Amino acid sequence: MNENTPQGQGELTHFDEAGQAHMVDVGTKSETHRIAVACGTIRMKPETLAIIQSGTAKKGDVLGIARIAAIMAAKRTGDLIPLCHPLALTRVVVNFNIDTSISSVTCTAQVETYGKTGVEMEALTAVQVGLLTIYDMCKAVDRRMVIMNVKVMEKYGGKSGDWIAEQIESSPD
Amino acid sequence: MNENTPQGQGELTHFDEAGQAHMVDVGTKSETHRIAVACGTIRMKPETLAIIQSGTAKKGDVLGIARIAAIMAAKRTGDLIPLCHPLALTRVVVNFNIDTSISSVTCTAQVETYGKTGVEMEALTAVQVGLLTIYDMCKAVDRRMVIMNVKVMEKYGGKSGDWIAEQIESSPD
Amino acid sequence: MNENTPQGQGELTHFDEAGQAHMVDVGTKSETHRIAVACGTIRMKPETLAIIQSGTAKKGDVLGIARIAAIMAAKRTGDLIPLCHPLALTRVVVNFNIDTSISSVTCTAQVETYGKTGVEMEALTAVQVGLLTIYDMCKAVDRRMVIMNVKVMEKYGGKSGDWIAEQIESSPD
Amino acid sequence: MNENTPQGQGELTHFDEAGQAHMVDVGTKSETHRIAVACGTIRMKPETLAIIQSGTAKKGDVLGIARIAAIMAAKRTGDLIPLCHPLALTRVVVNFNIDTSISSVTCTAQVETYGKTGVEMEALTAVQVGLLTIYDMCKAVDRRMVIMNVKVMEKYGGKSGDWIAEQIESSPD
Amino acid sequence: MNENTPQGQGELTHFDEAGQAHMVDVGTKSETHRIAVACGTIRMKPETLAIIQSGTAKKGDVLGIARIAAIMAAKRTGDLIPLCHPLALTRVVVNFNIDTSISSVTCTAQVETYGKTGVEMEALTAVQVGLLTIYDMCKAVDRRMVIMNVKVMEKYGGKSGDWIAEQIESSPD
Amino acid sequence: MNENTPQGQGELTHFDEAGQAHMVDVGTKSETHRIAVACGTIRMKPETLAIIQSGTAKKGDVLGIARIAAIMAAKRTGDLIPLCHPLALTRVVVNFNIDTSISSVTCTAQVETYGKTGVEMEALTAVQVGLLTIYDMCKAVDRRMVIMNVKVMEKYGGKSGDWIAEQIESSPD
Repeated sequence: MNENTPQGQGELTHFDEAGQAHMVDVGTKSETHRIAVACGTIRMKPETLAIIQSGTAKKGDVLGIARIAAIMAAKRTGDLIPLCHPLALTRVVVNFNIDTSISSVTCTAQVETYGKTGVEMEALTAVQVGLLTIYDMCKAVDRRMVIMNVKVMEKYGGKSGDWIAEQIESSPD
Repeated sequence: MNENTPQGQGELTHFDEAGQAHMVDVGTKSETHRIAVACGTIRMKPETLAIIQSGTAKKGDVLGIARIAAIMAAKRTGDLIPLCHPLALTRVVVNFNIDTSISSVTCTAQVETYGKTGVEMEALTAVQVGLLTIYDMCKAVDRRMVIMNVKVMEKYGGKSGDWIAEQIESSPD
Repeated sequence: MNENTPQGQGELTHFDEAGQAHMVDVGTKSETHRIAVACGTIRMKPETLAIIQSGTAKKGDVLGIARIAAIMAAKRTGDLIPLCHPLALTRVVVNFNIDTSISSVTCTAQVETYGKTGVEMEALTAVQVGLLTIYDMCKAVDRRMVIMNVKVMEKYGGKSGDWIAEQIESSPD
Repeated sequence: MNENTPQGQGELTHFDEAGQAHMVDVGTKSETHRIAVACGTIRMKPETLAIIQSGTAKKGDVLGIARIAAIMAAKRTGDLIPLCHPLALTRVVVNFNIDTSISSVTCTAQVETYGKTGVEMEALTAVQVGLLTIYDMCKAVDRRMVIMNVKVMEKYGGKSGDWIAEQIESSPD
Repeated sequence: MNENTPQGQGELTHFDEAGQAHMVDVGTKSETHRIAVACGTIRMKPETLAIIQSGTAKKGDVLGIARIAAIMAAKRTGDLIPLCHPLALTRVVVNFNIDTSISSVTCTAQVETYGKTGVEMEALTAVQVGLLTIYDMCKAVDRRMVIMNVKVMEKYGGKSGDWIAEQIESSPD
Repeated sequence: MNENTPQGQGELTHFDEAGQAHMVDVGTKSETHRIAVACGTIRMKPETLAIIQSGTAKKGDVLGIARIAAIMAAKRTGDLIPLCHPLALTRVVVNFNIDTSISSVTCTAQVETYGKTGVEMEALTAVQVGLLTIYDMCKAVDRRMVIMNVKVMEKYGGKSGDWIAEQIESSPD
């Protein structure tokens, strides 16, 4: 049986002392209520945003479809991210906010579980796939959309405790 | 048999005239050699970047793992993006460039196929999952990483022809 | 952190008060032993049924293959149904009953878990894929098969308690 | 190299002469434009249907979500049905029709490809998952919904030629 | 656009000249009829083999289930093997041969496609998952089963031409 | 509700008394810490092994990629093996050992969970896909590689208790 010795501080936990990747042992971590909130933004031409806005109200619901894609992607995170633990999620909420001043849509995903490891990756994956779905549906009219500012906003539960990103960090770019 | 009438200009092709989503008909498009190049960047603390750099050279190969995750994700695009056509990719190349001046890693993915529809979504999905994998492996030492500037850079083949993003657009943020 | 207010009675729980879909919060529900039984029927030509019957006995085991497909599909439910919670199933049993009087095969699936949410969808998905697999294997000799009467029969565990469909409801069509 | 002898008439093609299942050889079939249309119905309480109808118009878009699930499921058919050939679909259209007279929703899926084998299974899988998604979203208010009358309606292309189900067969139950 | 220079002889094609993995470009390869045959063996206690044999004849069809798992796994190869190209298979045949003299079951898989790259990996994956499924179903009565001698036997089509493993190589262990 | 009677001793638990496959009921088993270790070997030409060895040190990291594929495959076990229970793994460690004396690479996988059923299948699946990935990346230079001696080495937890394969059994071939 393999019994890796603990790693030194500041090292990446996904590698053992020989530099080999592994799915880290979370067996002895306690099962707590874990929440993560992530967000990200897609910027586009004002005309593109106008189509999304009219669609949401009347027909061609881009954001409704992107929301479903984001929720489904959260469930696929363990399949996509190599060293991520598979988790039974207990809640996924995805919202989109339109900001016409900078012609953008911001996706926010909140994911929860009761488990041995956090759900930041699930929240980030939901955001990424939600924004990619918007790109897919609008690319015929706007090739120059850019996805930006994807990050974790809040994190609750687990040994490292609660954490909220400082606001100043919300717009590094 | 359903025969939707063509849509007006400037409308999103993923919806029919009643605003209902569909996977658009690409059956009559010609099979051409299609290439798409996408890129995106993850910004982090200099200490985090230093760990990635030392790992690549010696042990704990974060970028090598992220590259594999990106390539595998390109193959899963049709599973993740609701209205995306499944495609048999003929080539996927993923590269990472480190920029210590802004403490970031940029992922570039080039995807190719001989088919009836383009591969921008596959290239973007590879980039997104490559960057997410970096986030996953470094999150224990740096929660504040931000993914930014994810976009399509080049596109070849298909009816709309070749297209290269203007350089000025490369850094909107 | 998002704290949706509870919904009014008679509303669909998969939408918040703004009508936006989410994967509902089951985190506070208790982990109980949950069982669901679903069934459904495929009707076909007597000659088709005769082939299935001879196959089961001697060679070409249509129902054996359909059973495996049904069991595997139960495990994929969370991947297929957008707002369904992923669940670690503890038992899946699938049976087929032949009724020569109406030339049909009925599939019954019983699924169990110890978890925070019910398994009706897993039982229904198993039934649907089991019946689809029969269709697939027999379609070369019978295009006119019809799948009918797919429904939940019994449900045990959880806050809403035990429930058995009344017999009269077993044949609405 | 295995060279199975052809089967006798009236036998199931998914089995060889020893009764062993295989994924049949379609290599020598010609690549033609193939279309399949399938449909199926879910019957429910009038109150449940009323909620779906109000949701479609205003908020809580059950049918919009079911449509996305159906389209995505069409792409997963080869993963679910054991002996089904994987196919690169070129078009998927899913529609829902509400019939208040019998308090039901009918899902119709049209799937197309240019390939060596037909797409009936993809159309049927789309219908089944579309109807299951409606069940999932409404089950909190109506446990007694029944899925019925799932079948192939039309089929075009391939060696066996075009085929349209006779109307009388549309309502066997 | 990335244009890697060709590699030197004797090097692994899955890496570029900088040692970075990629999914190699098969776009310019011709679409030919490609066939691969792979096989592998699982050795077990004679009592275990006796149970499998009785099951096949009468009930508890271990090999029938392993065959289905093997066929389905062939379709999942591109999802499992990181640098493998996704392929639309046109035929999959899986057989099992029992050898009571050494108390073993040998699985042989033949996979075919018309495409730009070979199907050895698909044949090997089918064999591996077929044998694993036998292990899974028999492990309650025999923990010491061993899988051995998994290899490619024959290969047809493609630039490198036809190839049949020499018989002496069939039993290296 | 189906209540199968227990089976006679020496029978395969994956079948009920009628010989029909099911996913066995593990609901009443206790959640214990479960560990399984499996291993397997791929034999190749000395020149091929030399390329792998130079790659690991300098560029073209075959074993690093095979390790990632193995870890990801462990998470997919329930999708591949028909009657396997889905499990939330808490740890996956994969190692490769090179033996130049017999020109081979041995893959060892240790998988852990806290759950109601063991993880031997997950460990074996990781080993198989790890070895297949080596085959895939080296097949251009060596078609005659053989995978052998894949087996469970150690098993801890659960009702049947701890178990270690006797050394003599390590080399049956």
